Amino acid sequence: MNLQNDLILRAARGEKTERTPVWLMRQAGRILPEYRAVRANVRDFIELVETPELAAEVTIQPVDILGVDAAIIFSDILVIPQAMGCPYKMLENKGPWFENTIRTPDDLQKLHIADPEKDLGFVLEAIKITKKGLNNRVPLIGFAGAPWTILAYMTEGSGSKTFSVARKVLYTQPEFAHQLLQMITDSTIAYLKAQVKAGADMLQLFDSWAGILSPAQYATFSTPYIKQICDAITEVPLTVFAKGAFFALEDLGKLSCNTIGLDWNMDIAHSRKLIGNNKTLQGNLDPCLLYADHSTIKKETEKMLQAFGSSHHIANLGHGLYPDTNPESVKVFVQTVKQFNH
Amino acid sequence: MNLQNDLILRAARGEKTERTPVWLMRQAGRILPEYRAVRANVRDFIELVETPELAAEVTIQPVDILGVDAAIIFSDILVIPQAMGCPYKMLENKGPWFENTIRTPDDLQKLHIADPEKDLGFVLEAIKITKKGLNNRVPLIGFAGAPWTILAYMTEGSGSKTFSVARKVLYTQPEFAHQLLQMITDSTIAYLKAQVKAGADMLQLFDSWAGILSPAQYATFSTPYIKQICDAITEVPLTVFAKGAFFALEDLGKLSCNTIGLDWNMDIAHSRKLIGNNKTLQGNLDPCLLYADHSTIKKETEKMLQAFGSSHHIANLGHGLYPDTNPESVKVFVQTVKQFNH
Repeated sequence: MNLQNDLILRAARGEKTERTPVWLMRQAGRILPEYRAVRANVRDFIELVETPELAAEVTIQPVDILGVDAAIIFSDILVIPQAMGCPYKMLENKGPWFENTIRTPDDLQKLHIADPEKDLGFVLEAIKITKKGLNNRVPLIGFAGAPWTILAYMTEGSGSKTFSVARKVLYTQPEFAHQLLQMITDSTIAYLKAQVKAGADMLQLFDSWAGILSPAQYATFSTPYIKQICDAITEVPLTVFAKGAFFALEDLGKLSCNTIGLDWNMDIAHSRKLIGNNKTLQGNLDPCLLYADHSTIKKETEKMLQAFGSSHHIANLGHGLYPDTNPESVKVFVQTVKQFNH
Repeated sequence: MNLQNDLILRAARGEKTERTPVWLMRQAGRILPEYRAVRANVRDFIELVETPELAAEVTIQPVDILGVDAAIIFSDILVIPQAMGCPYKMLENKGPWFENTIRTPDDLQKLHIADPEKDLGFVLEAIKITKKGLNNRVPLIGFAGAPWTILAYMTEGSGSKTFSVARKVLYTQPEFAHQLLQMITDSTIAYLKAQVKAGADMLQLFDSWAGILSPAQYATFSTPYIKQICDAITEVPLTVFAKGAFFALEDLGKLSCNTIGLDWNMDIAHSRKLIGNNKTLQGNLDPCLLYADHSTIKKETEKMLQAFGSSHHIANLGHGLYPDTNPESVKVFVQTVKQFNH
């Protein structure tokens, strides 16, 4: 039952480890030919997410192929709105699209708090199959979107450069926004706990659209709900990754989670000062750097490892892998981390 | 010859003013029915930019209608690539698009340093007509894109969420990038000087895609070229607005420009500390706030004015006006600034 490689769990808890553990956001996905082969057999992205055997298969691929220290369950943050009664489609080259948006108090009547066993069984099943397939080689990370990011999609109805519909809701209907955020939070807590019960060894919360809020709005509409989730999840280590929320790092440092993710805009030493010394930090190589030649990748990865120091660090990118990244370049990144001596 | 209202110029120079001056990024544009009426008579956005009489007309509209303390010439940052030999189209609902991108040293052969009189005469003519039309009521602001942002469009060939093609160039072909940046910088300095000669009373440099670079990349590929421009422009006050470059505020504070623009993500007090007390700051109300009711707009605008203090401030939004903003809400913002007593 014991994990053969639990580096990432120990690093998250702040324990001294033999070396820095490494995984990559979006490691399971389009960069791997093996993923694309599986994807070609299903109708679309959502069918892949909803087919536990296949989701498990692509989850395990990067562990074998890239040699990372953790798997992350292949899924999508938007399964939560769907589970709450607000389904979506994933349009090719366009991203997510919701037929019915949630923009008024009346719209809340259409929603319910997600029941993970009933509404998200396919994810839990995928986690169970993955755990078997991993056979305790490395830990499995579960995840969900942070409430603000989920609200942003539910109100806007799609991706957006400015999310101005979503942000308008915060200014014009703050009470409605808080009601919706609470429903999302309750659903997310239940969902994350169910993921742990199904076998997830660690969890990550993605606040992908943190960076478009003002500091005051973020403190009002995002951090308090992330805090509820952090306080509720006591079973396994939790990472909070709030992309672009440089202005909130000090507040995030006060949460009860173990790890804070940094994006590539965030200066490592400065972020450490804001967050304090008790948290593990995760990140933060620019995913674009993996387009460079191997010696540049190696040099910049080592520079990053040096800046984070020998403990309280989980190596990763500062955002998800770009789909056209060469897997060989990813291997250089992973190997550099594994071979580095602090 | 003297301006009747030179508040904004005096504020930029750090002089004490009777009240805080105010204008809005994208004040000339789609929010005004009067603009849409002019726009309906031309084929597309680019024709409007290239027709001096009409560009001048829409430039003056917000001075009359919104009561702002400055006009900004109606134009586009992408006239520079065009003037250098890299033309573009503005696709409806899609944004700019370049048929020929600049991605290799060979592509540089297609380009030349812009000659403003020859290549950008339509902008200079629009400035002259505007100056006559304004009749010295308020100053006229000229502008250009910062070199990194212009390179981003020329290499990527269109707008993008990640500008990964453009950023890839920085990692894989740094020498080529520096060559292109220098050509853009030389073109931009000549262009801005020509704008001043034509009548611009003040200038602004927009680094719209500053926020997608890592701090190290920004320090290498953006700030040095902005510095060249700041050092070359000694005729009139210059504002640098680097959207999202929270990590560069300390460096930007060392430039020789008068004013630094803040976006709505940037905390006012913290930014002031990083930038120092010698610069005027511009900004930074969230453009989304103009969707709120009038009393909220008033309250938040006053809170912003208080935070900036009574001098060294030019009131503005933290980004351009969203096109569906109600002009009445913009007037509430403008009037609140004008009536505020520090």
